[in-house]
Amino acid sequence: MADGIKAIVFDTFGTVVDWRGSIISDLASWGVEQGLNVDWADVVDRWRDRYNPQKARVRSGELPWTNLDELHFDALKTVFDEMGLPLLDEARMMHINKVWHRLNGWPDASRGLHRLKTKFIIGPLSNANVAILVNMAKHADLPWDNVFSCELFQHYKPDPETYLGVCKLLYLEPSAVMMCAAHNYDLAAARALGLRAAFIARPNEYGPGQTTDLKAEQDWDYVADDLEDLARRLGC
Amino acid sequence: MADGIKAIVFDTFGTVVDWRGSIISDLASWGVEQGLNVDWADVVDRWRDRYNPQKARVRSGELPWTNLDELHFDALKTVFDEMGLPLLDEARMMHINKVWHRLNGWPDASRGLHRLKTKFIIGPLSNANVAILVNMAKHADLPWDNVFSCELFQHYKPDPETYLGVCKLLYLEPSAVMMCAAHNYDLAAARALGLRAAFIARPNEYGPGQTTDLKAEQDWDYVADDLEDLARRLGC
Repeated sequence: MADGIKAIVFDTFGTVVDWRGSIISDLASWGVEQGLNVDWADVVDRWRDRYNPQKARVRSGELPWTNLDELHFDALKTVFDEMGLPLLDEARMMHINKVWHRLNGWPDASRGLHRLKTKFIIGPLSNANVAILVNMAKHADLPWDNVFSCELFQHYKPDPETYLGVCKLLYLEPSAVMMCAAHNYDLAAARALGLRAAFIARPNEYGPGQTTDLKAEQDWDYVADDLEDLARRLGC
Repeated sequence: MADGIKAIVFDTFGTVVDWRGSIISDLASWGVEQGLNVDWADVVDRWRDRYNPQKARVRSGELPWTNLDELHFDALKTVFDEMGLPLLDEARMMHINKVWHRLNGWPDASRGLHRLKTKFIIGPLSNANVAILVNMAKHADLPWDNVFSCELFQHYKPDPETYLGVCKLLYLEPSAVMMCAAHNYDLAAARALGLRAAFIARPNEYGPGQTTDLKAEQDWDYVADDLEDLARRLGC
């Protein structure tokens, strides 16, 4: 079934990196150093809750193209306000905003990607902007062949311009490109355009009590336990 | 002097890969298999001669944006015609055109880049399109953190949009980005915009009798013998 697949692109937040766990851990230890008394789990959950509405405003054209670092910064200030926290100075607010550049991979991520890279072109296909993805790759040892950020296409997933943009840049037919994600909606959008699809469940992405994307909702081309398992299934 | 440099971007053709030697060697052995009697050194020299005039037509706006694979294919057909060679079938013409995806690094390239990657964000900043650069990196083991192709900016070097495009995508000031090239004109364009500059002479890029870019023509920030020497000078 792997016949003809030349490139695999990966959703990153949740699929490759543990954004929630990483942010809580990073900011909790930094917050102690800074003498800040903040519930960082509450911050991150509120922060991420603003992500889909923000993306929707850009996708509908209500907002002009705005990259994720900028959306994050706007949302962060709103979250501080909601929680009754005074804004910190610019340098510290930026340090918090850049926590998305310092996310850790799930335990299987780096090893799995190193194996997949031996046989396929690999890259993120992520709503994160280029700077986030490049810095994250250095931090988490994600050996991408290229960073396919939605910033390059000025469209957020699941807009077709993103999936087809990868195919066009690589001169590959959609059937030669596989999308790998922990989110069924992302795979459905890719499949509708002719790409292949691989699902990996990440049942703790949103923390305890997650109710969505606990399992594959279609007969995806591959359903794997994690990225090392995907590599094994693909003969890497 | 390396203080503050966060990213280094590299010209590729000539600076990182030996395009002329690679193409002659690749096509000469393939040509024998195919029973073709062609002077491949003559082909490559004529082919490359068409590159600057082609770029000039795109940069002036005379041609709409056209990527390098497409410019190469147009030029290749013209070269065959000039040399009185009959065109081959589409598959073989494409095989020849894709030789630019299969270029070998200079002997120091892969090792030097692996060292530089430990301390800096590294990427090509090349007029080649994304597919050429991604395939070339796999072929020649060039461990880029990201591929900054001029295709992303729809401008060819030395247009300012290319150098500044890298800075913008990485959220870096120009002074935090260094251009590395074997061509003085490329470094002059980068320096004029505030980027740093590193020169490496590649006196055999154009084969025997090369007369240009034999040495540094300005006091570039770094002048190194090759990429391993540059890594050493930068403490990698």
